[in-house]
Amino acid sequence: MEINKIVSESLSAVREKNPLVHHITNYVTVNDCANITLAIGGSPVMADDINEVYDMVSLASSFVINIGTLNSRTVEAMIKGGKRANELNIPVILDPVGAGATPYRTEVAKRILEEIRISVIRGNLSEIKTLYGVKTKTKGVDSGDVIDENADEFTKAKKISKDFAKKLNTVVVITGAVDIITDGNNLYSVYNGQKIMSKITGTGCMCTSLIGSYLGATENVLVAALSGIVSMGIAGEIACENLDKSNEGTGTLKVRIIDAIFNLNEKVIIDRGKIMNEG
Amino acid sequence: MEINKIVSESLSAVREKNPLVHHITNYVTVNDCANITLAIGGSPVMADDINEVYDMVSLASSFVINIGTLNSRTVEAMIKGGKRANELNIPVILDPVGAGATPYRTEVAKRILEEIRISVIRGNLSEIKTLYGVKTKTKGVDSGDVIDENADEFTKAKKISKDFAKKLNTVVVITGAVDIITDGNNLYSVYNGQKIMSKITGTGCMCTSLIGSYLGATENVLVAALSGIVSMGIAGEIACENLDKSNEGTGTLKVRIIDAIFNLNEKVIIDRGKIMNEG
Amino acid sequence: MEINKIVSESLSAVREKNPLVHHITNYVTVNDCANITLAIGGSPVMADDINEVYDMVSLASSFVINIGTLNSRTVEAMIKGGKRANELNIPVILDPVGAGATPYRTEVAKRILEEIRISVIRGNLSEIKTLYGVKTKTKGVDSGDVIDENADEFTKAKKISKDFAKKLNTVVVITGAVDIITDGNNLYSVYNGQKIMSKITGTGCMCTSLIGSYLGATENVLVAALSGIVSMGIAGEIACENLDKSNEGTGTLKVRIIDAIFNLNEKVIIDRGKIMNEG
Repeated sequence: MEINKIVSESLSAVREKNPLVHHITNYVTVNDCANITLAIGGSPVMADDINEVYDMVSLASSFVINIGTLNSRTVEAMIKGGKRANELNIPVILDPVGAGATPYRTEVAKRILEEIRISVIRGNLSEIKTLYGVKTKTKGVDSGDVIDENADEFTKAKKISKDFAKKLNTVVVITGAVDIITDGNNLYSVYNGQKIMSKITGTGCMCTSLIGSYLGATENVLVAALSGIVSMGIAGEIACENLDKSNEGTGTLKVRIIDAIFNLNEKVIIDRGKIMNEG
Repeated sequence: MEINKIVSESLSAVREKNPLVHHITNYVTVNDCANITLAIGGSPVMADDINEVYDMVSLASSFVINIGTLNSRTVEAMIKGGKRANELNIPVILDPVGAGATPYRTEVAKRILEEIRISVIRGNLSEIKTLYGVKTKTKGVDSGDVIDENADEFTKAKKISKDFAKKLNTVVVITGAVDIITDGNNLYSVYNGQKIMSKITGTGCMCTSLIGSYLGATENVLVAALSGIVSMGIAGEIACENLDKSNEGTGTLKVRIIDAIFNLNEKVIIDRGKIMNEG
Repeated sequence: MEINKIVSESLSAVREKNPLVHHITNYVTVNDCANITLAIGGSPVMADDINEVYDMVSLASSFVINIGTLNSRTVEAMIKGGKRANELNIPVILDPVGAGATPYRTEVAKRILEEIRISVIRGNLSEIKTLYGVKTKTKGVDSGDVIDENADEFTKAKKISKDFAKKLNTVVVITGAVDIITDGNNLYSVYNGQKIMSKITGTGCMCTSLIGSYLGATENVLVAALSGIVSMGIAGEIACENLDKSNEGTGTLKVRIIDAIFNLNEKVIIDRGKIMNEG
C-alpha cells in the first residue's frame, strides 16, 4: 500500500506543477497524447522543426521522443532536442515504437540511446528485446512476444529489463498483460489494465506521455515511470467497467480512457493500484 | 443472401488472420484509420519514410496508399512501397483523395496507377471520373457529382467503373449514396449507409482501410472490396440508429462507427447487408 | 439582441453556401478542425504541398493558416497560399499558435503578417501581445497571461487589440475567459464558454476553423470572427451541461463540442449568445 500512496502523491505533484511536456511524436496518436497530457494535469507542446526544437525543449519540464512515424527530418530534431534536454538536466523519455520491425527503426532507436541520456525507455517486449539485443518476433509496431504472469517469458522479461536498465543506467518499462518497471535495482510489476486496450491505437504512446508528465513533476524517475503505468492501467479498467458491451466498443473506450485520466484522483490510485514490489 | 454469407466469411477471415495493414496515408484521418483497422481485426502500421518503406511493406499483408495530404517526400515512399508490394504480390489499394481538385493530385494519382499494379481503387465519383478521364466537378476533396440510385448518373457511373476496371485490370469502387464495386465483369451495388456519414471527415479513408484489412485476409479481391463497403455501411447505420438526435451529432457518430465495426459479426452482415448483384 | 440576430444569420449563410475552407494547419488537432468545419456547414480541405497550394487555395472560399506544428517546408506553402488568396481576395485567417514561445515561431508569424494581408488573426493573449510587441509570458503554446473580466489585464487587452487591429487593418481576436473581437473601431466582448475547454487540445484551433468557415460565407469580417467565437463558446457550454461529471471528462467533452456545433441553430445563438458591444 505504501507504494500506492507514493504514486498518488505524484499525481498531486503533476496537478500542482502543470509541467510543460515537449513531444516529438507520431502523427497517428498525437492528438490523444496531447489530450491525455492535459487530462493528467500537464501542458503538452508538440514542435518538431529543427529551427525551434532547441528553444522549445529549453522551456520544458520533460521531453518525450516517440519514433512512431519517424522520418529523416524529425530524427535530427529528436537528437538536437535530446542533447539540449541533457544539457539542462530535463528528463527524456523514449518510446521506440516498432523497433525491430525495420532496420531503420532499430538503428534510429539505438542512435538515440547512444547519443542521448534517457531517463525512461518504455516499449513492448519485442521493442525492448530488440534494443537489448536478443531475438524476438515483431508484428509491425506490435509485439510478437507477450508477457503473461504465469509464463516463463515473464521471468525472462524481468531479467532482461533489469540488465538493460543497469547497462543503460535508465529506467526500463515493458508494457503488456503485466507491466514491468525497473531501474536495474528495484523492479515493480503492475497488474492493472485490460486486454482490450491493445485494440485501441496509441495506448502505448499515451502511456509514454503520462510518464512524461510525471517526469516533469517528480524527482524520482522510477516512481514517475510507475505512476504513468498505474494511471493508464486504472483508467483502462474504469473505462472498461463503464462500457455497455452490447453496442459500445473501442471508439467509446478511447474517449472514456481520457475521461478516466481526467477524473483520476489520489484515492482511486490508492484503492485500485495493483503494484507488486519484486525487489 | 449467398453473397452476404460470403462477405460474413471474409470478416471471420480478418479476425482469424489479423493481417498487418501497412498505410501511407494522410495526417487528417490517420488515427481513425488505425482504430478502424484494429476494430475490424487487422493490425495497422503507418510508416512513410523512404528509408523503411521497403522493409515495412515486406512484412505486410496489404498496403494502403491514401493521397489525402500527399507531399513530394511521401509520394516517393508510396511509389517505392507499391513497387515492393507488387514484387511480393501483396495487394495494394489506392485512395486517390481529391484527384481532380488540383493538377498535382491528379498527376500523382495517375503516376501511381501507371507505376504500380493496384488491386483496388476506391474513390468518390469525381475522383474516379477524373482518373478515368471524363469531365467532372470536384469540391476540394469532396465529390461534386453525386450518385443517386434513380438518377441517370448511376447508370453512367456503372458503365465508367466497369470500363475503368477492365482497362486497369483492377477492382474499382465508387462510394456515394449507393456504392458500386466492380472488377470489370461483375458489378455489385450496395445500399447500406446513411447520408450523414459524409459530414464526418474520413469515412472514405476508413472505408479504404477496411478494404485494406479484408484484402490482407482473403484471396478474392472483389469480395474483399465488397466486404469493406458493406461493413462501413452497416456500421454507419447502426451508429445512426443509436444516436440521440436531440443532442448528439457527428462527434458521437464517429465514435460509434468504430464501436459498430468492433462489434460487427457474421450474423449482422448476413441480416443487414443490402447487396445487389447487377451482373 | 440585434447582434445575436446578425450572428445567427451568419450561421444560416454558412449552411447555405457550404464554403470550401482550405487549411494549412498542425497535425495535432487537424482531425478536429476538419470535423468542426463539417459540423458548422463548411467543407474542409487540408493540403500543404508547395506543388498544389496555389491551385487548392484558388478553389477555396477562405484560407486558414495555423502554425501549430510549422516546419520549414509548410511555412513556404503557407506564404505561397496566402499570396494567392490575396490575389483572389479570398479571406485569410492566421492562428499564430505559440508565437512568443520560440524565436522561430515568432519570426514566422511576423513574416506571415508582413507578406500576407490577413483578414482575421486569432490567438490567446500571449500570442497577440508577442506579435503586437509588448512583453508577455508564454507557456509552450498556452498563454501565460490571462484575461479576466475584472482584471486590469482586460482593459489593457482591449487597448492592445484595438491598436493592433488598426495598425494591421485587420480583425484581431483574443480568446480567453472573456473573448475580445475588434476591427480597430468596434470592439465586442463575448462571455460564452467554460474554463474546462482549455483542458482539451485544439479548442483554439477549432475556433479558428469556425471563423474560417464563417469568413467563407459572409462579407462582414468582424461579424464572421464574432460568429466563430460565439459558436464555439455556446457549443462548449452545451457540451458541459450534458456532461456527467462523476465519470465523464475531457474525452467526452471534445466529442460533445462537435455534436453541439452540428446541432447549433439560429434560435440557440439568439437565446444564448452573450455578446457585449464595447464600442
